[in-house]
Amino acid sequence: MEKINSLQNAHVKGWKKLQTKKGRKQQGQYLLDGWHLVNEAVKAHVAIRTLLITAKQLATEPDLTQFPAVIEISEEVASHISATVTPQGVFAVVNLPKAAADPLANLDLTRPWLLLDNVQDPGNIGTMVRTADAAGFAGVAFGTGTVDIHQPKVERSMQGSQFHLQLISTDLGELVARFHAEDKPVYGSELNPEAAQYLDIDAPASFGLIMGNEGNGMSDVLLAQTDKNLYIPIKGRAESLNVAIAAGILMFGLYR
Amino acid sequence: MEKINSLQNAHVKGWKKLQTKKGRKQQGQYLLDGWHLVNEAVKAHVAIRTLLITAKQLATEPDLTQFPAVIEISEEVASHISATVTPQGVFAVVNLPKAAADPLANLDLTRPWLLLDNVQDPGNIGTMVRTADAAGFAGVAFGTGTVDIHQPKVERSMQGSQFHLQLISTDLGELVARFHAEDKPVYGSELNPEAAQYLDIDAPASFGLIMGNEGNGMSDVLLAQTDKNLYIPIKGRAESLNVAIAAGILMFGLYR
Repeated sequence: MEKINSLQNAHVKGWKKLQTKKGRKQQGQYLLDGWHLVNEAVKAHVAIRTLLITAKQLATEPDLTQFPAVIEISEEVASHISATVTPQGVFAVVNLPKAAADPLANLDLTRPWLLLDNVQDPGNIGTMVRTADAAGFAGVAFGTGTVDIHQPKVERSMQGSQFHLQLISTDLGELVARFHAEDKPVYGSELNPEAAQYLDIDAPASFGLIMGNEGNGMSDVLLAQTDKNLYIPIKGRAESLNVAIAAGILMFGLYR
Repeated sequence: MEKINSLQNAHVKGWKKLQTKKGRKQQGQYLLDGWHLVNEAVKAHVAIRTLLITAKQLATEPDLTQFPAVIEISEEVASHISATVTPQGVFAVVNLPKAAADPLANLDLTRPWLLLDNVQDPGNIGTMVRTADAAGFAGVAFGTGTVDIHQPKVERSMQGSQFHLQLISTDLGELVARFHAEDKPVYGSELNPEAAQYLDIDAPASFGLIMGNEGNGMSDVLLAQTDKNLYIPIKGRAESLNVAIAAGILMFGLYR
């Protein structure tokens, strides 16, 4: 089994670059960090190119030494390539899904979708994907300006849900048009004079729900394309809800 | 106006110690970090002992130089005493509320309470307090084992809601007994054979809702004292919901 201990190793430099969108695009790969994500990928039959593992973690799963695509790495290399402060010491190098000529082909539009418009916090994004999975949504669309699907912190906070539903990067306006072409409504989440209380909505079996930027909300262009804007009534004195909390309340409230 | 530039200054050492529970207890003070929290404290008429501010921030609010209890600090001091990576450069030193002989005296039990049983993540805790505020809850009880109310990351993620509702540290069993003494139900959030779907519950105007530890759930002792355990139906393949998301769905679902 190959062992790599040096931060100067060319492979190590390549893995480190997978922390950036540019690096992931150039190499056509991304990194899954930690046992939970690696196990979820295996369960989901995601093809793992290479498994990177420290001696300490390998000792817990000695059968892994039998596999050809396993590389033992030092703790130092593990810390270097991880985006976490205390990595577990196991990583899977995975191929990026091939960019489809049409990202909107083969979408399951029979169930709801969550649309992320310029959402910035990786933890919020990952949590929203996990919540969309739990709520039974078909997929999550990452709109222009939203943090990349395969950003390490996004991957980590999705906690395996990235393998349970459809995730696409797309212009959200085009996806909204697809929903409208099938007579399915798209709801915004921006408070305005015409906004409706979310509990007063009788949502159909499939719809789109757009969550906007943490500070600035949804883009005006997208707002103009929604069928209705929904608000969550605030009873106390909090100025607003965290975007992931609001998304959770809306998803579970609309799709029971 | 006093200026402090040295990390060796005794005041600086004291402020730094406010990051720990022990330091806060010894000094009877805690620190609010950033304009938003400082402004919320002023709005809530919280007595500010001392305002600490960098020259850069002072330039945006020059009138502050008139006040006696303002100290100009260097950027280095600001970084040292802040628990954030990029502090704004403004802090308020605030007295800890006096520990009441009976923390359960003077509680508003006419509206619901959120009870945190051994919750560990400061961001989750702060977000739950903010959400409880938005949902119109009367207060949040921090049970034994739960991270301290005045921990800097908890303070920050409460985003001002700490000044809008009652926050207490207490043995949760005693608070549950108080609810029961007034014939008000207390709901757990642990999946078990007798658990009820949260939407099937017709919650009264006041109740307790307990959220448990992120990994291990609620303690058995507390679980035995609940009137009902509630679950959120998971439709997809996510194993669980983030505790703050679950709390948001339950709070807004039960208290409309």
